[in-house]
Amino acid sequence: MMKSLTEHLTFNVKSRRGYLNITPMVEELVKKSGVREGLCLVNAMHITSSVYINDDEQGLLQDFDDWLEKLAPHEPVSRYRHNNGEDNADAHLKRQVMGREVVVAVTGRRLDLGPWEQVFYGEFDGLRPKRVLVKIIGD
Amino acid sequence: MMKSLTEHLTFNVKSRRGYLNITPMVEELVKKSGVREGLCLVNAMHITSSVYINDDEQGLLQDFDDWLEKLAPHEPVSRYRHNNGEDNADAHLKRQVMGREVVVAVTGRRLDLGPWEQVFYGEFDGLRPKRVLVKIIGD
Amino acid sequence: MMKSLTEHLTFNVKSRRGYLNITPMVEELVKKSGVREGLCLVNAMHITSSVYINDDEQGLLQDFDDWLEKLAPHEPVSRYRHNNGEDNADAHLKRQVMGREVVVAVTGRRLDLGPWEQVFYGEFDGLRPKRVLVKIIGD
Repeated sequence: MMKSLTEHLTFNVKSRRGYLNITPMVEELVKKSGVREGLCLVNAMHITSSVYINDDEQGLLQDFDDWLEKLAPHEPVSRYRHNNGEDNADAHLKRQVMGREVVVAVTGRRLDLGPWEQVFYGEFDGLRPKRVLVKIIGD
Repeated sequence: MMKSLTEHLTFNVKSRRGYLNITPMVEELVKKSGVREGLCLVNAMHITSSVYINDDEQGLLQDFDDWLEKLAPHEPVSRYRHNNGEDNADAHLKRQVMGREVVVAVTGRRLDLGPWEQVFYGEFDGLRPKRVLVKIIGD
Repeated sequence: MMKSLTEHLTFNVKSRRGYLNITPMVEELVKKSGVREGLCLVNAMHITSSVYINDDEQGLLQDFDDWLEKLAPHEPVSRYRHNNGEDNADAHLKRQVMGREVVVAVTGRRLDLGPWEQVFYGEFDGLRPKRVLVKIIGD
């Protein structure tokens, strides 16, 4: 018999951009699901944010932010055709570099992560509540 | 008992690059699968195209196209070592930025998408038929 | 009854960067799993490497390497805040472009890949053993 769990997490980042380590919240949901062996999908439900896996190190988070701003600058907002009454085109682009989702193995009722792997929510157009979906399936 | 459905979609984009909203076709396959709770994988089967999720907004599609062309220009084709009798090296690079696949939760017999999430086929080397795989598993 | 298989592969690339075609090893694990219809997750367990799908063509592998080095240069190492006693910030960035993982359909006991799709391990901070996780679920 397959088991599944579906949960939504809401984040309200108090700045335009921010990076939150959400690993403990996802781990908690894996426990709650009762799934022993399976897959855990974690995805942004908004198209100006990312869920990705990388290091929880302050210098690196700043490096990511600088690098993304160089690859897809926020300003001048007029450089993007999407910014016709909006100003978040750069956020749609930044999110493609970092990705929408991660799929993590569930093994022995736990997230099967490498020693430094941490699940992050990356916000590129914040200052409002936004959702992340966690779906766990397996047995 | 686990259910599964495997289907291939074929697209023939009439230009080198193009962006097609394929959400209704994927949604239809979810219905057809009979899966109530599970996961839906949608991936390009060619290595010069992407399946990704973002906004269906014409200005943004043009922004993506301009941005990808800046990150990995098509010309001069001689700048790439791959282009030895070929001219699509840029398409292989662009596809890495946009991604090969998306995994979407299936909840209550429907794609569990955020309000603006749309599934797109991104073509970077068109003018010929190319395939996308949809695989749905669950119960 | 759902089946699952969890295996770790270890790679020790003898240079800072390298690209290994690991498709036959993953295919072998699909056979071993006994899964007929399902999903196969292949992910780097380290945050300075990638698993991605693209072409096994030497010119293109060199194009990827040049392009990634241009998008996120290794030197000067001092340009990155993460490089405080470390020198691998560029590897964390390069891995985001190429991605952490792939999810591949398993159909009829085989990886359901397009004609040119090959599963690659991308190393951006090598010279030491690093692991890749393969998780297969289905029935």
